Amino acid sequence: MYVIVVYDIEVERIDAVRQTLKQYLTWIQNSAFEGEITEGHLEELRLRLAEIIEKEKDSIIVYSANNPSWMKKRVWGKEKNMTTNIL
Amino acid sequence: MYVIVVYDIEVERIDAVRQTLKQYLTWIQNSAFEGEITEGHLEELRLRLAEIIEKEKDSIIVYSANNPSWMKKRVWGKEKNMTTNIL
Repeated sequence: MYVIVVYDIEVERIDAVRQTLKQYLTWIQNSAFEGEITEGHLEELRLRLAEIIEKEKDSIIVYSANNPSWMKKRVWGKEKNMTTNIL
Repeated sequence: MYVIVVYDIEVERIDAVRQTLKQYLTWIQNSAFEGEITEGHLEELRLRLAEIIEKEKDSIIVYSANNPSWMKKRVWGKEKNMTTNIL
């Protein structure tokens, strides 16, 4: 399945969240990751992130499509390459 | 069509970008909007945002699905209500 993950995390936990997401998905923008992932790995990711985030303060939204062709992607402005950012 | 818009905009232009997005979509997270929009309005939005952003610095990604049921949404942590934020 193809997923887009967007997050709004308080600064003290943001690096840990990104480090975890990076192990499963591609960092495409400051607050967004995307990529192909299995249901099993997504559940593993959810459990790992649940250990890091504060549920009353942080928010992570996961959009998924079973077929990536169901989602069209357009980039307006700069196509950022976040993979060069060191965490 | 249903869209998710994620953005990475420099601070001096962020309010103008959000003000514009708010006229078409729902603010769901610090750096994300979503909602139902026609192709015509999306093109109008693109043109309006193109007037605001700096193409070498700012980035906006638009994911779209013709049928919203093709995309599943999960929220981990807090479900934020950004509509109460005043711009």
